[in-house]
Amino acid sequence: IAEGDSGHVKELVSPLHEADVGALIELLDHEERPRLVELMGDEFDFAALTEIGETTREEILEELPVATLAEAMRELESDDAVAILETLEPEEQAQVLEALPAQERIVLRRSLEAAEGTAGRLMQTTLIAVPPFWSAGEVLDFFRATEPDELPDNFFEVFVVDPAYRLLGTVFLDALVRAHPKTRVEEIMQADRRRVQFDEDTEEVARLFERYNLVSVPVVDEAERLVGVITIDDVVDVIQEAASEEIKALGGVSPDEELTDSFWWIVKSRFLWLLINLGTAFISASVLKTFESQLQQMVALAVLAPIVASQGGNSATQTMTVTVRALATRELSRSNALRIIMRELATGAFNGAAFGLLTGLVAANWFQTFGLGPVMALAMFTNLAAGALGGILVPMLLERWKVDPAVASGSFVTTVTDVVGYGSFLTIATLWFRLG
Amino acid sequence: IAEGDSGHVKELVSPLHEADVGALIELLDHEERPRLVELMGDEFDFAALTEIGETTREEILEELPVATLAEAMRELESDDAVAILETLEPEEQAQVLEALPAQERIVLRRSLEAAEGTAGRLMQTTLIAVPPFWSAGEVLDFFRATEPDELPDNFFEVFVVDPAYRLLGTVFLDALVRAHPKTRVEEIMQADRRRVQFDEDTEEVARLFERYNLVSVPVVDEAERLVGVITIDDVVDVIQEAASEEIKALGGVSPDEELTDSFWWIVKSRFLWLLINLGTAFISASVLKTFESQLQQMVALAVLAPIVASQGGNSATQTMTVTVRALATRELSRSNALRIIMRELATGAFNGAAFGLLTGLVAANWFQTFGLGPVMALAMFTNLAAGALGGILVPMLLERWKVDPAVASGSFVTTVTDVVGYGSFLTIATLWFRLG
Repeated sequence: IAEGDSGHVKELVSPLHEADVGALIELLDHEERPRLVELMGDEFDFAALTEIGETTREEILEELPVATLAEAMRELESDDAVAILETLEPEEQAQVLEALPAQERIVLRRSLEAAEGTAGRLMQTTLIAVPPFWSAGEVLDFFRATEPDELPDNFFEVFVVDPAYRLLGTVFLDALVRAHPKTRVEEIMQADRRRVQFDEDTEEVARLFERYNLVSVPVVDEAERLVGVITIDDVVDVIQEAASEEIKALGGVSPDEELTDSFWWIVKSRFLWLLINLGTAFISASVLKTFESQLQQMVALAVLAPIVASQGGNSATQTMTVTVRALATRELSRSNALRIIMRELATGAFNGAAFGLLTGLVAANWFQTFGLGPVMALAMFTNLAAGALGGILVPMLLERWKVDPAVASGSFVTTVTDVVGYGSFLTIATLWFRLG
Repeated sequence: IAEGDSGHVKELVSPLHEADVGALIELLDHEERPRLVELMGDEFDFAALTEIGETTREEILEELPVATLAEAMRELESDDAVAILETLEPEEQAQVLEALPAQERIVLRRSLEAAEGTAGRLMQTTLIAVPPFWSAGEVLDFFRATEPDELPDNFFEVFVVDPAYRLLGTVFLDALVRAHPKTRVEEIMQADRRRVQFDEDTEEVARLFERYNLVSVPVVDEAERLVGVITIDDVVDVIQEAASEEIKALGGVSPDEELTDSFWWIVKSRFLWLLINLGTAFISASVLKTFESQLQQMVALAVLAPIVASQGGNSATQTMTVTVRALATRELSRSNALRIIMRELATGAFNGAAFGLLTGLVAANWFQTFGLGPVMALAMFTNLAAGALGGILVPMLLERWKVDPAVASGSFVTTVTDVVGYGSFLTIATLWFRLG
């Protein structure tokens, strides 16, 4: 297709949804991607570029002339335009902004100045605001009289503002059409709508949407002036992104890593995480090394010690996973923390006792040495109880110290269970069998 | 407060949002919860019960009389009513349904018959459908003429259906108010709106919303008849739920476990997962046991072997996490699978070589034995490469066999790296030092 037949390409690609065009771009070769955009000309929907990975987007944007980009920015909704502009190099971004009419430039610049991960970056600035003394009929007439491209693509509500553009309330379209045409909007507006500050964290915004089942929320600046609106479809991406980051962090992968990243980037980021793990593995190994003579005298201990460490590690990971998730969803708070700590500790102790009994029986029979039974049982109990405590306290302390518990808990917690597992098992064995 | 002063309680609780009432209920003692509902009487918003944990909901519902429940079901939106009805025991559910007017009973029963986790359970059945020949003005007049409680609480679109109630298209409210009052709705409707089948999986529905940035989607039965509508606020819960389940499964916790579950339930569910892990830990230990005499001859091997296993396990977990997430978000597909497998394998081999060199140097110096260097290096390389392969192939195969990769991958993958780690390290050591 990409042999230059522009008419044919347009015919095939134009009817597709922007998400499908994005998927199509991802499937193309590197050189074909900017070529497709050129061949599509005016008919290319730049919103498709917000649907693809960041690396691919950068590659394509580098190849496109500033004039094309400026034209595209004018046609996009402001939040999509910001998503594309933020991928550009600073100089190129400035050039594109220069080529835009002043009004649009100011709006986009304000969004770009908002820190990444704040409401200001996520919001859409095209919205409809009316004075409180307008009647429902006047608002509907205003819609009909306005050019479609001056209105948002799809909108569900109208904002009511005072002369200083301070937000007074909002009216949903269904309330508007149900009202008598002569009713003033201030009579039907919801004055107590939740609003968010321009510099609010997006994950905090997402939680607000989830908790109150919102579909949109107005964004205001320090002076309570309306500056934009965040709609739920943008929030869905924030929620999905936050979940992905948490999952990657728990798996020891950099939260920024994406499937489309290059080999070298991935090697480097994984290497750093593995280096930290190697450090903790050597700490655990030094514990083993201090018991070198005992291991030599009774090699069964070398075979069984990793079982104690592994079972403790897994039990602690269970507790840690539940804790990290509960902290992320704000289900775990001061009011229930003590109850949950006690429950996890009791679970660890109970399962420690059960697995202590079980593994003690197996170990004693496997090596035909009675003493290994009680030694294994006691060490298993100690390690599972310690693991439960570490699994819940480590993430809670990290959260209090403002460190992301999903990122840092894993290696801490398994180091605890390795050290306690090896240490307790070999110490108890030394005492029981009078080794040393 | 719960000393029976009904007036005072109403005054305090009524102005709260349903989500906040839910949070309040969770904070109360067991006995106080149904008491609050009784004291609130007619003013209690049963939607608050959809905002609390399932265990707490069951407790409260058990205490309430059938008549109260039936009354509440009538006032709720259909999706909230279904969420509450599905918590009831079958007999009680039947009693509540009997007490409802026929029309509402039929609608609710159809939703309850839909399997859990399908579009039919999630959908809202209160919606507005109009014939294609109505004009925009007629639709607006219809809104004004209809009693508010016959319409959905909040709506953004009108469905256009033929006489057999087959879905022809939808008109968003903004298009409706912008259109000339004499325009027929079939001229302004979107005929190609995406729709989902009644028995579609909710996670599939969520993906559709995410991909196409939808705010709502109509639900149809096999004959393309309109039966309901799913709005994005319900989908947000599905997305959050799916992420939670994936995180829990990866951490070795039952996906159903909730923070409010009781001690015994948690002990039981965690025990089963730990039992599986114990099995795999004994498999790894048997590998160590077959090298018992070598370990006795050279105790340094017992100290170093867990480092090889742990580093392989962590590297494999990185690959597995990325793979599981990419499978869940459908980023990993046939078209890019080979490229990703090769990249992960190359990353594993590269980091294997790097860490082989590093740990080889440390090991040789630590134990002042030159031979431990090359043995450690070779085993580390082998295990990290094997781990990368296992980390990507295990989840992909499980996915193909229709087993949830998030649930089952973890223990498989770490068993691979434990067995390969111990096995390769001790075999290479046996050959190098001529032990045995």
